[in-house]
Amino acid sequence: MADALPTSPLARPFPELKPMAGVRFGATAAGIRYAGRTDLVMAEFAPGTTVAGVFTRSKCPGAPVDWCRAALAGGVARALVVNAGNANVFTGRAGYEATQANAADAARLAQCAASEVFLASTGVIGEVLPYRKISDALPGLYATLSEDGWEDAARGIMTTDTFPKGAVRETTIGGTKVRIQGIAKGSGMIAPDMATMLAFVVTDAALPAPVLQALLSRGTEKSFNCTTVDSDTSTSDMVLLFATAKAGNPKVADAQDPALAEFTQALDSLLLELALLVVRDGEGATKMMHIRVTGATSDESAKRVAMAIANSPLVKTAIAGEDANWGRVVMAVGKSGEPANRDTLSVGIGGTWIANNGTVVAGYDEAPVVAHMKGREIEIDVDLGLANGIGQAWTCDLTHGYIDINGSYRS
Amino acid sequence: MADALPTSPLARPFPELKPMAGVRFGATAAGIRYAGRTDLVMAEFAPGTTVAGVFTRSKCPGAPVDWCRAALAGGVARALVVNAGNANVFTGRAGYEATQANAADAARLAQCAASEVFLASTGVIGEVLPYRKISDALPGLYATLSEDGWEDAARGIMTTDTFPKGAVRETTIGGTKVRIQGIAKGSGMIAPDMATMLAFVVTDAALPAPVLQALLSRGTEKSFNCTTVDSDTSTSDMVLLFATAKAGNPKVADAQDPALAEFTQALDSLLLELALLVVRDGEGATKMMHIRVTGATSDESAKRVAMAIANSPLVKTAIAGEDANWGRVVMAVGKSGEPANRDTLSVGIGGTWIANNGTVVAGYDEAPVVAHMKGREIEIDVDLGLANGIGQAWTCDLTHGYIDINGSYRS
Repeated sequence: MADALPTSPLARPFPELKPMAGVRFGATAAGIRYAGRTDLVMAEFAPGTTVAGVFTRSKCPGAPVDWCRAALAGGVARALVVNAGNANVFTGRAGYEATQANAADAARLAQCAASEVFLASTGVIGEVLPYRKISDALPGLYATLSEDGWEDAARGIMTTDTFPKGAVRETTIGGTKVRIQGIAKGSGMIAPDMATMLAFVVTDAALPAPVLQALLSRGTEKSFNCTTVDSDTSTSDMVLLFATAKAGNPKVADAQDPALAEFTQALDSLLLELALLVVRDGEGATKMMHIRVTGATSDESAKRVAMAIANSPLVKTAIAGEDANWGRVVMAVGKSGEPANRDTLSVGIGGTWIANNGTVVAGYDEAPVVAHMKGREIEIDVDLGLANGIGQAWTCDLTHGYIDINGSYRS
Repeated sequence: MADALPTSPLARPFPELKPMAGVRFGATAAGIRYAGRTDLVMAEFAPGTTVAGVFTRSKCPGAPVDWCRAALAGGVARALVVNAGNANVFTGRAGYEATQANAADAARLAQCAASEVFLASTGVIGEVLPYRKISDALPGLYATLSEDGWEDAARGIMTTDTFPKGAVRETTIGGTKVRIQGIAKGSGMIAPDMATMLAFVVTDAALPAPVLQALLSRGTEKSFNCTTVDSDTSTSDMVLLFATAKAGNPKVADAQDPALAEFTQALDSLLLELALLVVRDGEGATKMMHIRVTGATSDESAKRVAMAIANSPLVKTAIAGEDANWGRVVMAVGKSGEPANRDTLSVGIGGTWIANNGTVVAGYDEAPVVAHMKGREIEIDVDLGLANGIGQAWTCDLTHGYIDINGSYRS
């Protein structure tokens, strides 16, 4: 049914993802749920590839999340297998057995240990994964893996997504050129808490797993974890970062090493781009919202206020209706539970301050705000006027499209 | 625009609210926002009436909430003035002056202190309340106050409500017959945190203000605070409970007095009825959902899990689509942040257990669940299998109607 949805009006074209030494991707149609499209993706990594991961904080995670958490202890990755259409969540012992079987299948092909295989599944929750279809399809898929398979992979992991998502950065470590490329999927059940939905990022840099993990954890906190589509945290959220070590950069032993400054900035920027691509494909989205909060008692507090605004159905429906209903922003600040004082609070939309210190700005002219609301990118500013904490969040509007998609997902 | 909305399919007829000694109600059209309907309500209470109140925990409460919080210190009420269409929220000094002026107006008419007047406003946020329209209308309104004015009052306080809401209980205190009657309004921006939207309850019992307050605080925790429409907490939430002392019941000095057992039960039951009437008028609602959680580590934890399910847009849209998508219930349990263990978790819908101890029940037959989903009242059961904590929540489904209403509220 994903193919039946019209492409999001906020979509971005897929970027040119060039071959990267040490990783090959491919996709095939295993017939897990969708007809007439690819739904199984595999990647093989060169020996010596390190890996970092962040996962959903859900108390009911999927079997593949459990598998990856355990596998991550080794810090080494040789293969990745991802299916779309069935999340392998809440499937009990059958779910665990499916992950064991498919990891063993991939390990045989890539000639590695099963614990060096990473697995991800998204789609319907509570139905047993037909893992034999995956076992049957993997050998053929493995034979087709290619350094040019990035876009095929980005398409093969989609569920209700309406466009494939990718991003690339070129940067340096200690003077050596390195590249970071990633793909992501996600459209609904998006309220990342630690990580969101699926994103797979690969760099050709040589970085030890603990360094990679530190960079990824910090980077997702400022990107995926600042986005929301519908406040619902998925059971299958996962961001994996692989480093193939083919770039030949100097050794780095510590995430704080100044040699990583440029790389860290590039990684953060790529993670944010991927996260925003997911928001751009938010179910039913017609407008992108960027909420900036300043003047909070701390950065954490500012982020929580920004997320309260981003998660408010009343703010999101107002934006969908192109209504500059700033009173609902005030409501959302008030309900966040964070320190706020009505009488020092200011609200702006599209660069125009509408309310200042607890009341509407004298002579407020709604015209430029009304014009801004008609656009695709909506900017909301809130200044709490308390201290210097800043934070931001991104989301999309809430429209009839969301109801359409989610009232009949399984049918 | 409230009048333009079709009546909720979950509506209940307004009950017969008989005259109650010590209180007179009335409503009039003050032209605050809506054309062709009443929008200003007044009540006068007999001397000796005590009062209790619970209010929104929003950090950006409306000026009338501030006013009532201060007035409540006296424990005495002689008048109530409520307007619909303008919330007098985020209106700065002008908002404060409006409450002062209208309280003084009502005090002159009721011949009482301004601090014995209670005020409530709901409607648009951030627009200055045209309080002179209220000042001008109050004398004429006061002249029409009547013991039969209950339903007029219930209609006059409506905003996006599609039906007036009232409830009545007859009970006894120490052998003396007493009555409790209440009215409420509310439809959107419903995620009570302490209290919700507006509800005004009157009893003819004689009860000191501290006793009344203890009963009300306990009662709202089990009723209004277990309901949600859209997870958005209003800036204007307020439940006031007045006791006119006309019933002649024996003196009661303590909320724990066994003489109050029957009264407490009646009050709790009435508060829950009013709260559920608000849910039945949830914006766009077509189905009522009742979520029961058992087996939690505590009652508080069970309630938070129930509310996480009730606030999940994905659960609510699935219910709207008559899709028994129990996987989304699992997702919501997982995201609640409360102690849960996938492998002891069970989920049921409409009395049929679908999943047990972390996996789907062997031979699960969806037919009775599918039939249940077509009804107006949806029952969801979750057993966490950890301990003995229980809790519940009520909400409505999320439909196109919600988007319609909230994409154009101000236009």
